[in-house]
Amino acid sequence: MSEPYRLNLATAAQAIADLTLLPSELTESVLDRLDTVEDTVSAYATVTADSARQAAAVADGEIDALGPRSPLHGIPIGVKDLIDTAGIPTASGSLVHAGRVPTADAAVVESVQRAGAVSIGKTHTHEFAAGVRTPGTNNPWSPDRIVGGSSGGSAAAVASGTAIAALGTDTGGSIRIPAALCGVVGLKPTYGLVPTTGVTPLSWSLDHVGPIARTVADAATLLDAMAGHDPRDPASLAVTAENRRRLIGHELTGLRVGVPTEFFFDRVVDEVRDAVAAAIVALVDLGAIPVEVPIPMAHYAQAIRVGVLFPEAAELHRRSLRDSAAKYGDDVRTVLEAATLLPATDYLRAQRARRLLHHGWLEMFADIDVLATPTTPITAVPAEQDEVRWPDGSTETVTDALLRFTEPANLTGMPALTLPVGQDSAGLPIGMQLIGRPMEESRLIQVGAALEHAKGSAGTLAPL
Amino acid sequence: MSEPYRLNLATAAQAIADLTLLPSELTESVLDRLDTVEDTVSAYATVTADSARQAAAVADGEIDALGPRSPLHGIPIGVKDLIDTAGIPTASGSLVHAGRVPTADAAVVESVQRAGAVSIGKTHTHEFAAGVRTPGTNNPWSPDRIVGGSSGGSAAAVASGTAIAALGTDTGGSIRIPAALCGVVGLKPTYGLVPTTGVTPLSWSLDHVGPIARTVADAATLLDAMAGHDPRDPASLAVTAENRRRLIGHELTGLRVGVPTEFFFDRVVDEVRDAVAAAIVALVDLGAIPVEVPIPMAHYAQAIRVGVLFPEAAELHRRSLRDSAAKYGDDVRTVLEAATLLPATDYLRAQRARRLLHHGWLEMFADIDVLATPTTPITAVPAEQDEVRWPDGSTETVTDALLRFTEPANLTGMPALTLPVGQDSAGLPIGMQLIGRPMEESRLIQVGAALEHAKGSAGTLAPL
Repeated sequence: MSEPYRLNLATAAQAIADLTLLPSELTESVLDRLDTVEDTVSAYATVTADSARQAAAVADGEIDALGPRSPLHGIPIGVKDLIDTAGIPTASGSLVHAGRVPTADAAVVESVQRAGAVSIGKTHTHEFAAGVRTPGTNNPWSPDRIVGGSSGGSAAAVASGTAIAALGTDTGGSIRIPAALCGVVGLKPTYGLVPTTGVTPLSWSLDHVGPIARTVADAATLLDAMAGHDPRDPASLAVTAENRRRLIGHELTGLRVGVPTEFFFDRVVDEVRDAVAAAIVALVDLGAIPVEVPIPMAHYAQAIRVGVLFPEAAELHRRSLRDSAAKYGDDVRTVLEAATLLPATDYLRAQRARRLLHHGWLEMFADIDVLATPTTPITAVPAEQDEVRWPDGSTETVTDALLRFTEPANLTGMPALTLPVGQDSAGLPIGMQLIGRPMEESRLIQVGAALEHAKGSAGTLAPL
Repeated sequence: MSEPYRLNLATAAQAIADLTLLPSELTESVLDRLDTVEDTVSAYATVTADSARQAAAVADGEIDALGPRSPLHGIPIGVKDLIDTAGIPTASGSLVHAGRVPTADAAVVESVQRAGAVSIGKTHTHEFAAGVRTPGTNNPWSPDRIVGGSSGGSAAAVASGTAIAALGTDTGGSIRIPAALCGVVGLKPTYGLVPTTGVTPLSWSLDHVGPIARTVADAATLLDAMAGHDPRDPASLAVTAENRRRLIGHELTGLRVGVPTEFFFDRVVDEVRDAVAAAIVALVDLGAIPVEVPIPMAHYAQAIRVGVLFPEAAELHRRSLRDSAAKYGDDVRTVLEAATLLPATDYLRAQRARRLLHHGWLEMFADIDVLATPTTPITAVPAEQDEVRWPDGSTETVTDALLRFTEPANLTGMPALTLPVGQDSAGLPIGMQLIGRPMEESRLIQVGAALEHAKGSAGTLAPL
């Protein structure tokens, strides 16, 4: 095999199981690729090449003796630097945590290592996951463009061939935004499905951990390894093992795809709107029934997200802000300091509104099985661009624009998948978001995989 | 029977079942008693004598035909005016709600009426349950003294013979404080055990509804009728019917009674300390094992209660405060308005500290089965007294003193029972509090009933 780093997870796992590819060969190919592209992309905060080679060699032996113990066995992955890794620096993209070396692995790291995954290193994050730009990491499709964030390094690594898949986190869209901007697949699971133990928190009620991969099926495979109950995480659900690829290949006939009549197609660049509309048509061609739905309370989502997230983040950073304010980036420090002025009653009002939004969305899902939306209203902007100007004359920050369509699923805790559905005229990836009912990840996987199959575009790497 | 209003619930229920007492006779006796003492006590905001007579007559017929359908069948009760009653004014002790007539019964009212209870009327509450004095209602043991609150009317009615039992609510101690000060039994159940649907809220996370009665067994009987799952209340637990009197009469041998080594015997008047200490000795005489325990984080309880309760109350009253500020009493308005200035981060910090306190208390209950404490550090003070001065030179408001020992069980959601254990030299009742593990109300009932039996003092009415 000439370029194993190009394989998606399922294909690589099959080759490993067939003994036509050794984990060490795959890992070496990924590390070679890293030598070639990392200067351009800068996906990693820390590369652990030696321990990756060691783990791969161990996997070689285990698989030779007993075969792979899971589809992740011997698969090189990237781990967002917000996620603790024992003995390996974990700084959450911040000078505040510079030099920090955790003594224990995060729950998800334990889980994927138990499944046999090989960690290539720690991927860049927007500082403390409190932003969606990940400055310093470049978009593999166009290095002068932002990669998105906060799991920017994970998405960039998967898109550029320096990881077969990666772990990310998502508080307002931090898995889906960089996945969309990098042309890969990202999945924010149901709140509580994947434990957050050992992940530097930004919000108690909005934080999620999930997979980034090159295909929908690969995201499901990685999620299956990450999901599970962890008594150390108070939000962790009592879930048992599940194969979330089980519906792949099932007909979409009769499946009701929600098509938003508002909000999700407002202030969207034309090429994004057209690509998502075409993807919905493709789903209808596959037998799905389009159902037009209004979107309950969507226009409150940003205010609710701010009202809930900012105070939770400010409280989580209270001591650190007091002791190390100067070490924070200006953008993050400003938000956290401003948040300390928000009254408790506003926080509670935001939580009340969130509950109403949640109820409205649950009712909406009585009429549909999945909701199809653009993941972001824009594609990757140049690194120096801070503002988006819309044809109606309104403007918003790039950050607000990028979060606009992803943040509702954090408020409701519903699972949300992004997959690439085309490119704009600049050749930049466009993502479609599929949102589902709580715990119905396998439904999103079914629909996403069907679309991917129809388009024949799964697993395309950035043309670096 | 000369004075049926003097009967406790169990005795009255037995007489009704034996057909030696008609619900209408009992109700008439209670209404006669009301004519005699209500001018002095002022327990009721609204007396519904006509509908009580009507309900009692219906009960007469039902019981004549089929026997009682529950121990509450035909029993006259008082309902705190914070609790909605269809067609009957429910003002929560406030001018803000003056003239308000709910169209539906609260869940607990539905439940006890289904069990056959006869409502005598609505009992006074401290305005919106936001205080522990219930001004206007007088202590039946000494009418110049406060009755406690906020369920002051319910406790006064039960103590003075104008209800056999009553419904109360408890956010920081509002069932237990007036029960203790009036020499009756009060039980704050486990958080979520009794639905709060139709009860004017003061706090989402601290509000509880529970029984006030003349004996421990009677409180259990009323609680059994009140408890149960209600899907309309998001905090309601999935509980099934239970007989919480089932352990009454079981030996206490080997039962571990926690005796606080700190906090609960600090700044307590001597007569209260002595009475509670004597009650603990009585439990040991019955076979219980005293276990000295430190009290985790108890000194933070007040700050946590304020940090959680005030913002929640202020948010719940936001519109009302804006539109009708002048209609609030000065004490309540001042607290609610001040609470709007509390930062969200402080609210979240209080909730975090609360979680630590909760964990500490759960661990404490690994070593003990129940915790025995004074219910309040003082007995009923004169109505004009606002401050308590302690021998160590410190002072505190009567409100803070009264809440000091009850508020921890609201923060932890653990069940807490108060029962009378003596009187001070002025003849005022002294209450002991028993706190238990979540859902272990029947254990508290067992211990409380054993103590009551040993002392032979159950069901004593105030000497009016």
